[in-house]
Amino acid sequence: MARAAKRGSKTSKAPSKSSKKVRYGVVGLGWFAQVAILPAFAHARKNSELTALFSEDPEKLRKLGKKYGVPPERRFGYDRYDEALQSGLVDAVYIAVPNHLHREYAVRAAKARVHVLCEKPMAVTVEECEDMIDAAEENGVRLMIAYRLHFEKANLEAVEAVRSGKIGEPRIYDSVFCNDVEDPDNIRLGPIEKGGGTLYDIGIYCLNAARYVFRAEPQEVFAVSANNGDPRFEECDEMTACVLRFPDERLATFTASFGAASSHRYTVFGTEGSVRLEPAFEFAESMKMRVKIGEKEREKEFDKRDQIAPEIQYFSECILADREPEPNGREGLADVRVITALYESARTGRPIRLGPYEKRRRPTLEQERHAPPVGHQDLVHVDAPSGE
Amino acid sequence: MARAAKRGSKTSKAPSKSSKKVRYGVVGLGWFAQVAILPAFAHARKNSELTALFSEDPEKLRKLGKKYGVPPERRFGYDRYDEALQSGLVDAVYIAVPNHLHREYAVRAAKARVHVLCEKPMAVTVEECEDMIDAAEENGVRLMIAYRLHFEKANLEAVEAVRSGKIGEPRIYDSVFCNDVEDPDNIRLGPIEKGGGTLYDIGIYCLNAARYVFRAEPQEVFAVSANNGDPRFEECDEMTACVLRFPDERLATFTASFGAASSHRYTVFGTEGSVRLEPAFEFAESMKMRVKIGEKEREKEFDKRDQIAPEIQYFSECILADREPEPNGREGLADVRVITALYESARTGRPIRLGPYEKRRRPTLEQERHAPPVGHQDLVHVDAPSGE
Repeated sequence: MARAAKRGSKTSKAPSKSSKKVRYGVVGLGWFAQVAILPAFAHARKNSELTALFSEDPEKLRKLGKKYGVPPERRFGYDRYDEALQSGLVDAVYIAVPNHLHREYAVRAAKARVHVLCEKPMAVTVEECEDMIDAAEENGVRLMIAYRLHFEKANLEAVEAVRSGKIGEPRIYDSVFCNDVEDPDNIRLGPIEKGGGTLYDIGIYCLNAARYVFRAEPQEVFAVSANNGDPRFEECDEMTACVLRFPDERLATFTASFGAASSHRYTVFGTEGSVRLEPAFEFAESMKMRVKIGEKEREKEFDKRDQIAPEIQYFSECILADREPEPNGREGLADVRVITALYESARTGRPIRLGPYEKRRRPTLEQERHAPPVGHQDLVHVDAPSGE
Repeated sequence: MARAAKRGSKTSKAPSKSSKKVRYGVVGLGWFAQVAILPAFAHARKNSELTALFSEDPEKLRKLGKKYGVPPERRFGYDRYDEALQSGLVDAVYIAVPNHLHREYAVRAAKARVHVLCEKPMAVTVEECEDMIDAAEENGVRLMIAYRLHFEKANLEAVEAVRSGKIGEPRIYDSVFCNDVEDPDNIRLGPIEKGGGTLYDIGIYCLNAARYVFRAEPQEVFAVSANNGDPRFEECDEMTACVLRFPDERLATFTASFGAASSHRYTVFGTEGSVRLEPAFEFAESMKMRVKIGEKEREKEFDKRDQIAPEIQYFSECILADREPEPNGREGLADVRVITALYESARTGRPIRLGPYEKRRRPTLEQERHAPPVGHQDLVHVDAPSGE
């Protein structure tokens, strides 16, 4: 119908399977793009290629274009986004603009038949997520949300340790993620309506991990936000503590904070023992898993590695093999619907019930991909959230 | 008036200061009395003496009386409780009967002008606690609640690490306490109205620690209980997860469970670092503290020790010096009012606001007292909660 007609009227820009390289444009050249996304392409060169850069900042375009060998004619301001997408220059975009712009940039890419790899949170509202899913489906492109830990060994081994039954029945998940955001102008500290706040930025890790270790969706959630009045937290929460009820009467608690010294961990407590990851959510440092059964504790350290190259490589595999990615739009939406419910609970002081949510595929160790660590990166016109 | 008249009409049974020994009767000879309270008197002999035993079980009285040198004429069934109290045989009782009987046994002791050291939780309801406080005041006796960790080095050093400002402003407290209660007939698994359930038995440790590290009383609390349907949890919760808002917008989360493998810990996250205790709430094993500031982590282990002798010795000091104990009736009541609010929240699905609560004294390192560990104890007619 309208959908089929639309699809038919477009020319697919998907690369031929024989070319074996997906050409990416990176949209947004902020801190994370500079320290993690751009350098990752060197480790994903088997099937992926950095082809174009998008930013409103000419100096970022110039310096980073030079650094990564993207020539001037493939560096674009946002005003030329559609033109660049239509030109056939890129097969996929990696969207790393602020959270409240994800929908717009994803939908415009999908409409140009360009595949979309989008940073998490997928978007700010459920409606935005649904628009993105619809746009990808209607235009026959793949949509993946950049859950780097779905390809990371420490987290996937924690998943397997729980799945194996080693700790018995998993009953409790407990997590804390503190990221001391020192720069008052950092976008993370923007209003919650624009995707600022602890849950969209770091609470999403605690939540996503609760979902992948329990392999289920929460049924009821409750949250309490607090704010110590520091001017940094004028527009968003300083921290939010959450309780989630999962099927089979399992409980998860987590606290996400922008105001305490940086630290992150989670533990799954089962009927026979526990699995802990600490650090749990690093993107460029080593992580540590401890499995405790009775009095015996086994510790395993995971060397630091590039976590972005694996997801780029995996997304390219999905595009080239015409397969649905595991952390797809439904995965991104699953988190956003819980985060919006948590903030609603914090605002109203009431627990929020969530309807059933179909979700079959979950991350498993088979998804693990390894890439060597990325070194230090000089920053262009941007500061780290910690103000370093 | 009535109160003064009452007080005047009684003969004080407080020991003279010169005698320097407070004579105790232990009321209730269950598991904890047998493995911890009775053997502790050997380490508290400086100012305390085990003089009488109370139980409904003749074999417990006989065997334990023999073991601890309490002759037959000082072993009593509960039917002779008042008679024994009136006899002038004991200066104080250590009450270790089931939680819902604390009020009755404490009030009867107070009326006989016998000092009261009572296991925690102080009682099941706020009203019961108030009755106990009133009875002690009206009869001029001391009332202490047996918070063993108020005299224990690891916890008091954690308190000092937070108080010192080492970790900056404390912002978040997070704790988990799992105690896998295997015996379905264990009293801990009784109905909440009778003081069964996770919060009265183990959640109280998480709560009490939150209160002594934050040195404040919660203003609003929320809880979610869960129950996996195991027949063990027919009368009480399997587990309960809690969120508490403290003054200065600090948040505490904790989960207490009878259904997961035994484990306990807490962490205080501050603006500059964190303090963790794990294990945190042991009564007869070593404990470990980790203080993390930036990338530096310092670990300190505390040898296992007898934690009951110190509280008996401290209570005797208070009696002999006519001083109010720090963990007094107001301290016990402070926890019980929060626990009842938490269970009310779990039942109604609503956060519960708590009124202001005056509480000036808090545990400090000056209260620390050391005693060597207690060895293995053969049990008489009783099982450990874990079924060992």
